[in-house]
Amino acid sequence: MKLVRYGEKGAEKPGLIDKSGQLRDLSAHLKDLTGDAYTPESLKKLAALDPASLPAVAGKPRFGAPVTGISKFVAIGLNYSDHAKETGNPIPSEPIFFLKANTALSGPNDPVEKPRGSTKLDWEVEIAAIIGTRAKYVSEADALNHVAGYCICNDVSERNFQIERLGQWTKGKSHDTFGPVGPWLATKDEIADVQKLSMWLDVNGQRRQTGTTSTMIFTMAKCISYVSQFMTLLPGDIVTTGTPPGVGTGMKPPQYLNVGDVVTLGIEGLGEQRQEIVGA
Amino acid sequence: MKLVRYGEKGAEKPGLIDKSGQLRDLSAHLKDLTGDAYTPESLKKLAALDPASLPAVAGKPRFGAPVTGISKFVAIGLNYSDHAKETGNPIPSEPIFFLKANTALSGPNDPVEKPRGSTKLDWEVEIAAIIGTRAKYVSEADALNHVAGYCICNDVSERNFQIERLGQWTKGKSHDTFGPVGPWLATKDEIADVQKLSMWLDVNGQRRQTGTTSTMIFTMAKCISYVSQFMTLLPGDIVTTGTPPGVGTGMKPPQYLNVGDVVTLGIEGLGEQRQEIVGA
Repeated sequence: MKLVRYGEKGAEKPGLIDKSGQLRDLSAHLKDLTGDAYTPESLKKLAALDPASLPAVAGKPRFGAPVTGISKFVAIGLNYSDHAKETGNPIPSEPIFFLKANTALSGPNDPVEKPRGSTKLDWEVEIAAIIGTRAKYVSEADALNHVAGYCICNDVSERNFQIERLGQWTKGKSHDTFGPVGPWLATKDEIADVQKLSMWLDVNGQRRQTGTTSTMIFTMAKCISYVSQFMTLLPGDIVTTGTPPGVGTGMKPPQYLNVGDVVTLGIEGLGEQRQEIVGA
Repeated sequence: MKLVRYGEKGAEKPGLIDKSGQLRDLSAHLKDLTGDAYTPESLKKLAALDPASLPAVAGKPRFGAPVTGISKFVAIGLNYSDHAKETGNPIPSEPIFFLKANTALSGPNDPVEKPRGSTKLDWEVEIAAIIGTRAKYVSEADALNHVAGYCICNDVSERNFQIERLGQWTKGKSHDTFGPVGPWLATKDEIADVQKLSMWLDVNGQRRQTGTTSTMIFTMAKCISYVSQFMTLLPGDIVTTGTPPGVGTGMKPPQYLNVGDVVTLGIEGLGEQRQEIVGA
């Protein structure tokens, strides 16, 4: 299934996109796509519905992030070997992670705010897992059993805030709109191999990132297992897993985003996002 | 007012502690102490109640953290000059902050888990603000207007995970039970001057930390204003503001917590906490 939240910000409804690409409303079956909607029991119920029986939604409504009311927005850093290299960092010996503020969570095509004083606004196409069952001290072998599905995430970053303002990357990763997620969550059964997905990102139509999840240093399973050693993941929690090469800070000379720039990005099977940069 | 959540974990009820120290039930007036309960409008309604009209609660029930359903648990680091010195760090030129996982939030007297593989489990008595109104780009002068009240927080830390496991302090600050908060939230009117409160922490009855909020490098107002430049704070969000000297990692030789140890801590006007260390 491809699950979505559609409608105006703060008033999104749950929906799914059927095989033909038609958006259909799920409001009669659940109130919203919170973590509770992503448990195996809930997904089983939704999968048993006949999509043709669900009301078709006309037009092209806005999409929100396909999950809401999350407890955590975890992000893995430097998880593609070539990206670590372009940022001048060594290959990590174990995953680096940090938390993005939950308030950064944003719709896939919503404008991204350039914070006041921002000089180094950057992009990062990433694949994110949404958790389906509580995960604490889970093994790598068991980790994907705790995943409901996958989404695109743009791990928007302000490099000056992240790196030059006294440590703790959270500072540069948490501004409102710095976490566009979606357009849809693809349930696990839709993705044959999460480590074989192509990904790309353009700025103003120019290709900046081209990658594949096959070059992740730590696999999706390893990332989730690892994070679960340090905190308990709950249904709905987002774990975004790092970006391939081609970020602005790695360019020579570095290039950053300005108001009016447009970022587009996509991952095989997970759709596309489009964000225009606006002032904060 | 002194507002609390009391009862078994996951089934807490809202309450208040009246002037005589009697716990009284607030269930007839609000469902739980989420962020919505801490807005100015809600606090005004609660303040208008006659405490004597509220049902007295018999016995000594467990306390939960006095807020639930939070979007963020922000923590300021190295915010007391003597503490920065004992950890071998320079005085920060601007606040350092990170996020604790929301799942770390815990009752004030609940056991604290020593994570698997933990070798450097440490304590940090801190004063935390609970946000009452949305705060984005607020000035230092206006910052305390966005605060509902104050609580004790033990910013429990695993120093190996925090420092020696590839950066990003979140890793050592987020284990379940690493955020005991409470026992009560004291509304702002109860605290004459938040920068003049004494604080202490004992381990197994031996004094380890003695301090006062007067030696904070960045005041409560400055911390909240500063964080609001990087993320939007919502009602219910917790901002804990750093610890005075006397943590285990600063001792010569360093001393850390083991299973069976008991940590007690308190802040003037905000009550006391007691945690026993247990295995994870």
